[in-house]
Amino acid sequence: MTPPDPLPAPAGTRPQRAARRYIYAFGEGHAEGDATMRGLLGGKGAGLAEMTNAGLPVPPGFTITTEACNDYFAAGERFPNLLWEDVLAAMAELEARTGKRFGGTEDPLLVSVRSGARFSMPGMMDTVLNLGLNEETLRGLIALTGNERFGWDAYRRFIQMFGRIVMGVDGERFEHALSGAKEGRGVADDTGLDAAALRELCGEFAHIVRTDAHRDFPTDPHEQLELAVRAVFASWFGKRARDYREYNGIPHDLGTAVNVQAMVFGNMGDDSGSGVAFTRDPGTGEKVLFGDYAINAQGEDVVAGIRTPRRIGEMRDQMPEVYRQFAEIAGRLERHYRDVQDLEFTIERGTLYMLQTRSGKRTAAAAVKIAVDMVAEGIIDEVEALGRVEPAQVDQLLRDQFDPKAKKGAVLVAKGLNASPGAAVGRAVFDADRAAEWAARGERVILVRVETSPDDFHGMAAAQGVLTARGGATSHAAVVARQIGRPCVAGCSDLLIDQVARTAQSDGARFAEGDPISIDGSTGEVFLGALPTVEVRFEDQADLRTVLGWADRYRRLEIWTNADKPEEAAQARGYGAQGIGLCRTEHMFREGERLEIVRDAILVAFEATRAKTLRDGGHDLTEDEVAAIARFDAAIGRLEALQQGDFEGILRAMSGLPVVIRLIDPPLHEFLPDHDELLVAVTRHRERGTPQNDPEFAQARDLLGAVEALREQNPMLGLRGCRLGLLIPDFVKMQTRAILRAALTVKREGLDPHAKIMIPLVGHVNELAETRKILEAEARRVEAGAGESVEYSFGTMIEVPRGAITADEIAAHAEFFSFGTNDLTQMAFGYSRDDAEGKFLLDYVDRGILPANPFQTLDRAGVGALVEMAVRKGRAARPDLELGVCGEHGGDPDSIAFFHGVGLDYVSCSPFRVPVARLAAAQAALADRAAERDR
Amino acid sequence: MTPPDPLPAPAGTRPQRAARRYIYAFGEGHAEGDATMRGLLGGKGAGLAEMTNAGLPVPPGFTITTEACNDYFAAGERFPNLLWEDVLAAMAELEARTGKRFGGTEDPLLVSVRSGARFSMPGMMDTVLNLGLNEETLRGLIALTGNERFGWDAYRRFIQMFGRIVMGVDGERFEHALSGAKEGRGVADDTGLDAAALRELCGEFAHIVRTDAHRDFPTDPHEQLELAVRAVFASWFGKRARDYREYNGIPHDLGTAVNVQAMVFGNMGDDSGSGVAFTRDPGTGEKVLFGDYAINAQGEDVVAGIRTPRRIGEMRDQMPEVYRQFAEIAGRLERHYRDVQDLEFTIERGTLYMLQTRSGKRTAAAAVKIAVDMVAEGIIDEVEALGRVEPAQVDQLLRDQFDPKAKKGAVLVAKGLNASPGAAVGRAVFDADRAAEWAARGERVILVRVETSPDDFHGMAAAQGVLTARGGATSHAAVVARQIGRPCVAGCSDLLIDQVARTAQSDGARFAEGDPISIDGSTGEVFLGALPTVEVRFEDQADLRTVLGWADRYRRLEIWTNADKPEEAAQARGYGAQGIGLCRTEHMFREGERLEIVRDAILVAFEATRAKTLRDGGHDLTEDEVAAIARFDAAIGRLEALQQGDFEGILRAMSGLPVVIRLIDPPLHEFLPDHDELLVAVTRHRERGTPQNDPEFAQARDLLGAVEALREQNPMLGLRGCRLGLLIPDFVKMQTRAILRAALTVKREGLDPHAKIMIPLVGHVNELAETRKILEAEARRVEAGAGESVEYSFGTMIEVPRGAITADEIAAHAEFFSFGTNDLTQMAFGYSRDDAEGKFLLDYVDRGILPANPFQTLDRAGVGALVEMAVRKGRAARPDLELGVCGEHGGDPDSIAFFHGVGLDYVSCSPFRVPVARLAAAQAALADRAAERDR
Repeated sequence: MTPPDPLPAPAGTRPQRAARRYIYAFGEGHAEGDATMRGLLGGKGAGLAEMTNAGLPVPPGFTITTEACNDYFAAGERFPNLLWEDVLAAMAELEARTGKRFGGTEDPLLVSVRSGARFSMPGMMDTVLNLGLNEETLRGLIALTGNERFGWDAYRRFIQMFGRIVMGVDGERFEHALSGAKEGRGVADDTGLDAAALRELCGEFAHIVRTDAHRDFPTDPHEQLELAVRAVFASWFGKRARDYREYNGIPHDLGTAVNVQAMVFGNMGDDSGSGVAFTRDPGTGEKVLFGDYAINAQGEDVVAGIRTPRRIGEMRDQMPEVYRQFAEIAGRLERHYRDVQDLEFTIERGTLYMLQTRSGKRTAAAAVKIAVDMVAEGIIDEVEALGRVEPAQVDQLLRDQFDPKAKKGAVLVAKGLNASPGAAVGRAVFDADRAAEWAARGERVILVRVETSPDDFHGMAAAQGVLTARGGATSHAAVVARQIGRPCVAGCSDLLIDQVARTAQSDGARFAEGDPISIDGSTGEVFLGALPTVEVRFEDQADLRTVLGWADRYRRLEIWTNADKPEEAAQARGYGAQGIGLCRTEHMFREGERLEIVRDAILVAFEATRAKTLRDGGHDLTEDEVAAIARFDAAIGRLEALQQGDFEGILRAMSGLPVVIRLIDPPLHEFLPDHDELLVAVTRHRERGTPQNDPEFAQARDLLGAVEALREQNPMLGLRGCRLGLLIPDFVKMQTRAILRAALTVKREGLDPHAKIMIPLVGHVNELAETRKILEAEARRVEAGAGESVEYSFGTMIEVPRGAITADEIAAHAEFFSFGTNDLTQMAFGYSRDDAEGKFLLDYVDRGILPANPFQTLDRAGVGALVEMAVRKGRAARPDLELGVCGEHGGDPDSIAFFHGVGLDYVSCSPFRVPVARLAAAQAALADRAAERDR
Repeated sequence: MTPPDPLPAPAGTRPQRAARRYIYAFGEGHAEGDATMRGLLGGKGAGLAEMTNAGLPVPPGFTITTEACNDYFAAGERFPNLLWEDVLAAMAELEARTGKRFGGTEDPLLVSVRSGARFSMPGMMDTVLNLGLNEETLRGLIALTGNERFGWDAYRRFIQMFGRIVMGVDGERFEHALSGAKEGRGVADDTGLDAAALRELCGEFAHIVRTDAHRDFPTDPHEQLELAVRAVFASWFGKRARDYREYNGIPHDLGTAVNVQAMVFGNMGDDSGSGVAFTRDPGTGEKVLFGDYAINAQGEDVVAGIRTPRRIGEMRDQMPEVYRQFAEIAGRLERHYRDVQDLEFTIERGTLYMLQTRSGKRTAAAAVKIAVDMVAEGIIDEVEALGRVEPAQVDQLLRDQFDPKAKKGAVLVAKGLNASPGAAVGRAVFDADRAAEWAARGERVILVRVETSPDDFHGMAAAQGVLTARGGATSHAAVVARQIGRPCVAGCSDLLIDQVARTAQSDGARFAEGDPISIDGSTGEVFLGALPTVEVRFEDQADLRTVLGWADRYRRLEIWTNADKPEEAAQARGYGAQGIGLCRTEHMFREGERLEIVRDAILVAFEATRAKTLRDGGHDLTEDEVAAIARFDAAIGRLEALQQGDFEGILRAMSGLPVVIRLIDPPLHEFLPDHDELLVAVTRHRERGTPQNDPEFAQARDLLGAVEALREQNPMLGLRGCRLGLLIPDFVKMQTRAILRAALTVKREGLDPHAKIMIPLVGHVNELAETRKILEAEARRVEAGAGESVEYSFGTMIEVPRGAITADEIAAHAEFFSFGTNDLTQMAFGYSRDDAEGKFLLDYVDRGILPANPFQTLDRAGVGALVEMAVRKGRAARPDLELGVCGEHGGDPDSIAFFHGVGLDYVSCSPFRVPVARLAAAQAALADRAAERDR
């Protein structure tokens, strides 16, 4: 995305004033805007206006609107129609209000210039302070304050900021000169530099500007102002801001506002100061003022850590009156905005000025506690509280964390960006291939890279976590790690990684490949050694449970879970799951001894089925055929007993709640050994001349033959799902028997089983109808044998596009649909997830070809359209059709909002996503309610 | 499908007459029905009525309606409400009209009873003649005719037919007794048996009936009639008739009529006879009476070949008056029905009776000639003529055929069912594995099996043709062979196949595995040796060209072709193709030396692309990276030159017509050697201890590494199509240059190239937009370099479901859509064609789970719905969007009708399907017109 093409201004004509108002003044008791005007004035401008209106001490100034920005680009990066004249008029008014003169040599008006878009975003222009200074106005400032050092320091700061931010001079060069000055004078801190030194430094800085920007530092204050305003506008289309908007789905046509505000100085002596503070502790949520301030310092000194600040509480003793006033204002603002505020303030010679207020960012734990406390305090109600916790924060609260006690004793190697939350422990590995290799042999590894590329995908997937030295929150490593659910610390720039020596080191520590390390993706910390993690217990999180309890009151969607074992079922029930939406029977096939039995069944399944057909047709069978049937039936019988036990456990754990059991789904070869390994084994035997009748050789040959017979070009689109059951009906029959007998057993125990049998991969109604015939005949046999009937219902996955398209036909044979959005996404896009994510999908997301990974967030326009179609057609054919989703999207908040919107009955997600889904479902319902109210 | 459940008749009450008329009389100048009543009277009944109305000599009788049949089943296989009373009344009327009495001993009325459904179908009940005979009526017949032998022969025939057809006696037993009688009397022919012998045989036959059917042969004529009518009804739900209907999509609720007709006897002496004849030669279409007759014979003797018949022309001399009368009637019937008629007649003592007339089945060649001739004769018009040729017949006319001269000298092994047309030559192979194996080493083979099963699929696909000893037109072998386009002779029951000895033999000949044989799937013949085939030249087929010329006047769809080479393009143009709808550039990659170049490019493609990105970002490159770029660019350059030459050839051949060129589509590993072979080679080297630096070992290792890096779980859903071009933009750029430079070259030659560039596998609009950017930038560079521009258009395949669903968005960036219905079917159903057809799809079709193979005939409800959606949305977004289809469905008549209906602009099919498509498109347009007229 690039700015719109410039519109040529009509040649030779003076454009007429448009019917737009570009300037809104604020401060000193009167503002022309208010908090509702975020779109026009940006967040900062609206906040300044609102603070003014609330009677808070705000230095006066004015906001140039976002429309001005857009018109500026529309006019080909020219100030639109009279904008500049309006700015000059606003400056004149500001002079009048402050009694100072911009460019004046006696009492010069200095201003700050800041960007202020509707959403704050990285990459937007930083603040330029002290604008209006030059050697003349500086003299006025010095005369006025009687503080030469203050004056030169202000000038030095101005050149440095303006030079770097507006003129694009390399900031390092200023820092270098500043360090040189300090060294030359043997002082540690810039407060140690006297007026003469600072004056000299100003000269050096001016020289740096001249050589680096190829022009002199502008001395005309109006030119300074114009350049600064242009720089703010230009930053709107800066690469980082653009990328951020792309990543966060923020439109590019919002534009940014510009705030011009009279300077107040926190560095005018010991009765001055600056600070930042939160109205509550953003880490814990505790209700105490939380922040830092510094005496005789400008705000950026505090933020940048140039001055060691003091905790805000100390102000109570140091400046009791100011503290009282500030605490009162903080409380007022919190109540006014009904949320924790993040405040900036400056004290100029004993007078408190508020420079900014905005909602304070907070940790997950704080978000939950604050929401609960504010409801208790009567500041907000439950509905508003539900909007104050993000579903992702709920997720974070439930992830394992490092034991805080263990952290204290551990060696902190470095701290980077908390790019993907969670705690990960493993041995450091420096390339993806080796990570995959070590992981394959059972090692837990952390992949350590300078930065990652799509080639590293397999290594990231194999690793416990990812650590990079370069890249931000939207770097490849960060994006991928979040998508595949791996903790990630990104952009850990303190870490020097030597890919050749396979070592990494920081100031504090060093580790080599193979050394165990621990990374905390929630905090960005990297530790030496394997730190113990603590399991997070949902039961202990009272505030979270309170919030989720509120959520349950407002959501319409039920939240079910995907669970294959009784323990998982019980866990999910503890998390609030209202049913099992997906129990994958084949997962039970893969464990231990069962795999052997399953293999036995598979090896003769086709032969035995054919032989049975012949037998049923009255044909005589060969000895081999009789043997195949016997072997197959024996294996099926053993599986049946095992599966029945599994189902009993799950139905017991979920007594009273629905349990959707999906019949066998994956291709058969997935249960057999790896083809390539067998091929290598057989080739070796041949090469060695192993006798044909060697038992190991013979077994390898047999298995290879079986695997080759079952191997498919595209197993995802091959013999699996209901297709398998239609070819080998004994699989369907066996599972039907196991489910019904389990339900009967559990019922006899006095419990309340609700089995729902689900057929996978149905694309044509006849597949379902035919499977149902097989299943119901068997069910009747079981019930007749038991002399007792038991409730079960019959439904299907909708996961094949054709199934969605013909949902009306299919609904005639199904009591419920469960959308398998993973497969539906695979087939609608034609992406095999296994192949696509590593090979091109993340590259697509990175390049903006896709707005998001459709396997994570449901693609509404395509896959969503199929879901919507199936809902509409299915309900038309069967009004009481039960509708749910059991794909991974069932746990994704954005997708949950969609499923709420199309009217599903429930979403089913993995147990640990159940709390997340409960909140997301409530938020979706509340958004609906709000939209309805607005209508 | 089974007959509907019987409805219980109200107990103790006599049902009242329904408002239905069950009986329609015909014959001797007056009929109650006519030709329009096929639905009610069946084809035969309507024909008899119509012949009567036309004043032809038809023996009198009556038709029991199809409604009677349906009511019979609805009433639980009981005669409905008064039906039997109506039959008796009709018999009484028949007695009155003939002056004979049913069951009378003096001049007994004998009748034939035949089934007659709306469509004639195999498995329906054959004719029962001479019904009404018993020992008493026989005496009357003998007295009346004075011919004892005739009487006993008639009785013998009656018992045999009735016993077999109505009573279910094994026909072999009668044949066996008949042979015994002939042997006992030393005669070769049944005409050699005298009255006494036949009388004795009647006794034997009665005994056979008693022992086989466990009841006496019924002697009451009315009981005979009732049983015969019930047998006709029952045959409607016989297995063969049911299967036939399923296969041909004929509903099961049409029911069959029953025709009861007074007997006339062609075996009453030398002034009597029977015959069958076509009004034109059904083999060639020539306008001559064509058929056979026999003196002193009943009709079934002629049909069954028991009597050696004479050619119909001989009748002219033998019975000049009858011949004249017959020829006149034949001409009248042909004009009346405006089509070739297939006639049955009997001459009883010099009087000609017409027993049946129906449209004559004909060969493909005859169909075309007859249609053209009849237009010339003014019997039908062009529109009607277009309905007289089936698209499948056009296909057949264009297939290679055996040289008729060679057939004459060849040894005919046997003749079976012509199950799938075409000529095939190859070495006989007796199992599927070996067929696949031999074919893989380049042998042409014919798979010979007793019957085939799904396990044989790979062998059938590998073979030139398929020959089976068992199974009919809907057997597995026949269905599969037609679907995969292999000639097939099925159910060749004369052939004794010994699967163990691997030999086959018939009376006349014997062949063993490895012997060359020739099968003619159009005629069912099997020959020893490799017969030469003759190429069919479209240019020589004047009549076909005439018909297709008419087709061109009526069709709305254009017919384009899929062609990758100039020769194919020229051939298709000769067949009438109006453009190339699909030129697959990757096919050009696979030939000879090119494959080496392509492999070279692929091996370094990713590394080179990454290196180029680094280079363009101003980074320094390693030596390896520089080398990779050089190697890649060299390979790309060589490919470009070759491709440009190919495109020039095609654009030249299609000058003035559109040529759609699709950019590279398949996954890259398809151009590399087989993975398993490489793995075996590498394993062997390792096992043998080949030194690491051995060049062969090293190369195998490198290639294996490359193949493994590119290998995908589901390549169909992986890195291919536009995804490939977005990752390796040089592929897109190279092909763009080759296409545009080719077009420029051809344009400079004074020709008129119309290149259309098509992007495959687009699922998201951004994929297309992004590819278009790359492509257009390159196109502008080419044009700038040439100093000249050239026309090209830009479009996309719609072959991913999501592409169809979001067609409105996509149409904004595409000037044309071409539906890739193969992939669309794969993804909509979730079937990988490679896997599905062999493993379960044909089984699905066989079991009726799917009505047809969706890869052959477009699935309207699912895939068709996607096409329709894309057409609607695409045209809404871009009204002048050009729409076509280039999947295999483009050559399938049923699918063409669908594409016509949804409003595509063209269909594109393989060159040899172009004539088929021309006709099918015209028929679709005419069906539209007819439907509109009917509205």
